[in-house]
Amino acid sequence: MPSLTARPRFLAPGATAGSATIRLPDDEAHHLTHVLRLRPGASIAVFDGAGHEWNATVEAAGRSGVVVRLDAPVAPVPEPAVAVTLAVGVQKEMETIVREATALGVGAIIALSTSHVALPTRARRSPGNAARWTRVAVASAKQCGRATVPEVRAVASLEAVLQTWRDGPIVMCVEPGRDRSGSAAGAGPRPSRALVLVGPEGGWTDAEVARVVSAGGRLMHLGPRTLRADLAATVLLSALWTSWGW
Amino acid sequence: MPSLTARPRFLAPGATAGSATIRLPDDEAHHLTHVLRLRPGASIAVFDGAGHEWNATVEAAGRSGVVVRLDAPVAPVPEPAVAVTLAVGVQKEMETIVREATALGVGAIIALSTSHVALPTRARRSPGNAARWTRVAVASAKQCGRATVPEVRAVASLEAVLQTWRDGPIVMCVEPGRDRSGSAAGAGPRPSRALVLVGPEGGWTDAEVARVVSAGGRLMHLGPRTLRADLAATVLLSALWTSWGW
Repeated sequence: MPSLTARPRFLAPGATAGSATIRLPDDEAHHLTHVLRLRPGASIAVFDGAGHEWNATVEAAGRSGVVVRLDAPVAPVPEPAVAVTLAVGVQKEMETIVREATALGVGAIIALSTSHVALPTRARRSPGNAARWTRVAVASAKQCGRATVPEVRAVASLEAVLQTWRDGPIVMCVEPGRDRSGSAAGAGPRPSRALVLVGPEGGWTDAEVARVVSAGGRLMHLGPRTLRADLAATVLLSALWTSWGW
Repeated sequence: MPSLTARPRFLAPGATAGSATIRLPDDEAHHLTHVLRLRPGASIAVFDGAGHEWNATVEAAGRSGVVVRLDAPVAPVPEPAVAVTLAVGVQKEMETIVREATALGVGAIIALSTSHVALPTRARRSPGNAARWTRVAVASAKQCGRATVPEVRAVASLEAVLQTWRDGPIVMCVEPGRDRSGSAAGAGPRPSRALVLVGPEGGWTDAEVARVVSAGGRLMHLGPRTLRADLAATVLLSALWTSWGW
């Protein structure tokens, strides 16, 4: 439900508190000039993707690009108290997952390669994936009001993600019936960071579930109905924020 | 994450405990014969859309339709403890909303006509809408394992919905900043029924929010980020189940 009066927002990764004026990146300049058809003098907002935002004014918009003047800094939309890294089995609906996870405030997204990933290796490892998913994250951040763009990491194995994860609990979303504790374990107390694992369309193997449990992961299911993998990510994040605070 | 071993499920609204054999409706028969290419002898499941399910066997499948034999009744996937009626501002993404709300266990879906609905009146009131959305609900129930298909009602006004709602709390999803209590009020204690209101793409008017508050409705926002209206419905339902139990 977009606010009808909000000023349009543009990403300028180079903006700093010391910048008087800044040139927008080409795709942002295109959006400003050719989609929204804004002209010099227009009031906009600029954010740096790392949590800072300014009111700004368009100074020049033409063939040589868009230059904006940074006016007052504004308080960014608060980030969630828990920095969630979402690692999700790479799948056809990755763009939906990235868009929704960004709007739901995750700090980082990792595309996981797992045993049951249904995509051909070529599609799974396409070098353009990370850039495309990052563009989706940027567009979603612009729309939802975040001044932070989550980092999107290219395909990694579950093992590599577990090996490098240090600082917080691991929550693994499993199908109904896979949660051997017999009930949704719940999110647990609020951590400062968490790793959230959601499987691909084909789900997890027994070995993958066992590996995550041995790494201390908590299994969570989301009711008795079978959820599509892309829906599971959104539902799990919503459940975690309900438990931990938005 | 669909279970790889589940037998395919078909809706047969006329099935009863007393039926020995039953003829599938035409679209279900088409799905069985031409999409899944099942033949006589195949093991399937049949559900009646009202909470009953059977193991069944295909007896005949051909030009004159599909006849199946009902074998043993099976315990259906449990329905949520709270019967939620989701009333949602009619919008372009209604099919996504119906599909996801069905997988999330809602009991009924009402398409709402509100002040900020962005669709032209013709699209909003198209006589085919309810039938199309019902087909989406059926497909989603088949996929998620529910034996119950939520009732999908054609477009109604907010006032008409409030006037006829009797039996439980009303929860209204509002944009960040619209929740004048200053915080997410939360879902409250678990009722047996609830009416859940989600706005259209353009959001609610002040008068609509005031009307719902005067009817005793509870306002809830879903964190400080602006969510697209179709995402808001899914996130709100997930938050409610997290509070009330799945």
